[in-house]
Amino acid sequence: MTACSSNFTRTSRPEVERDMAQEPQSASDDDVRVARTRRDVGRAALRVLTEAGGRSFSHAEVAAEAGYSRTTLYTHWPTKVDLVTLALESVGRMPHGEPTGDAKTDLVRELRAFRQAFVDVKLDQILMALAQWGTTVDEIAAIRDSIVEDGEGVARAILADVASGDELEAAVAMLSGVVVCPALMYGRVPSDDVIDQAVTIVLRAFGVPSEG
Amino acid sequence: MTACSSNFTRTSRPEVERDMAQEPQSASDDDVRVARTRRDVGRAALRVLTEAGGRSFSHAEVAAEAGYSRTTLYTHWPTKVDLVTLALESVGRMPHGEPTGDAKTDLVRELRAFRQAFVDVKLDQILMALAQWGTTVDEIAAIRDSIVEDGEGVARAILADVASGDELEAAVAMLSGVVVCPALMYGRVPSDDVIDQAVTIVLRAFGVPSEG
Repeated sequence: MTACSSNFTRTSRPEVERDMAQEPQSASDDDVRVARTRRDVGRAALRVLTEAGGRSFSHAEVAAEAGYSRTTLYTHWPTKVDLVTLALESVGRMPHGEPTGDAKTDLVRELRAFRQAFVDVKLDQILMALAQWGTTVDEIAAIRDSIVEDGEGVARAILADVASGDELEAAVAMLSGVVVCPALMYGRVPSDDVIDQAVTIVLRAFGVPSEG
Repeated sequence: MTACSSNFTRTSRPEVERDMAQEPQSASDDDVRVARTRRDVGRAALRVLTEAGGRSFSHAEVAAEAGYSRTTLYTHWPTKVDLVTLALESVGRMPHGEPTGDAKTDLVRELRAFRQAFVDVKLDQILMALAQWGTTVDEIAAIRDSIVEDGEGVARAILADVASGDELEAAVAMLSGVVVCPALMYGRVPSDDVIDQAVTIVLRAFGVPSEG
């Protein structure tokens, strides 16, 4: 749940830790060009991933979408996994404030950030593409898992104060579900009121006082 | 939630109300052949839908998968929507027992049937394909909505005794979520224990006594 509400651009390769959306201040022409290529290809890769889904994702499709040659893409991002990783970098970090310590406030904020990612970066399409693709490609499954585990962290930590084991798994999945299910099943995101009610239901079940 | 746990082959066209999996008992050769064609094409259409996703779904793909000519397909199922409808018919009805009247028992049974559909007919892949496709094609969105509304019915009716409005929406989405989210986010279905805990959490929040 709240997948991506923190950072779903995590990668193990140090060179991609830079924020590619910002070109270097005092860069050589080469640096500027490289940064622009990364940004253009990353955005194109994200569009292909969210619009065509995982199984249509290819160097040829991304190259055509980005307006670069396939040779350029293969040189910098030899595998599809490299291109997907780049696509997810181009999404950037989700807003992720400091916890207030009030469970209801913090859970509602997490779920709203999660919902916002569905609107802003088509997170539902990203998750679906990774989920479908991840069933057959282990490296894609690993990317998906790191996104989800990273994003679930805050809500899981809050709920871990009152639940554990299967009960915790159920509570985490249910709170994700209040955002994911309307998107998947009806093509819409839930209202603020539905999110509030979901958090209230879960906290009430665990006897946690929640204001409002 | 529990989408499809009842019947997700609903269609408005009377001729498809027949169970195409059973060939007529005293059929002419023509009837037998037509039934076989429907069954073969339906199964092929389902495979293409769940494996390739909504956007790769075409008469050409389904014809190749089924081993029939495109002309045959276009004659009987002129539009892609016709082919998707046929694909969903080939899934058949989900097991759907009589309610016992015990909320926990009935909700757990619904969620287990929902989970089983993820395993048996790749319901997650079906929903994802329809969700992605439904964002751009209204008729596909309508098929998806009728599947979901139909499938949610039992759980929604049970929860409507204790909740309404946004609270009911939240509860229904959360119970679906306990099956959907692990599938979408981790590529696995939840255990019996996680399903039990989810139902217990929701019922406890509403003060409904639940055994076990």
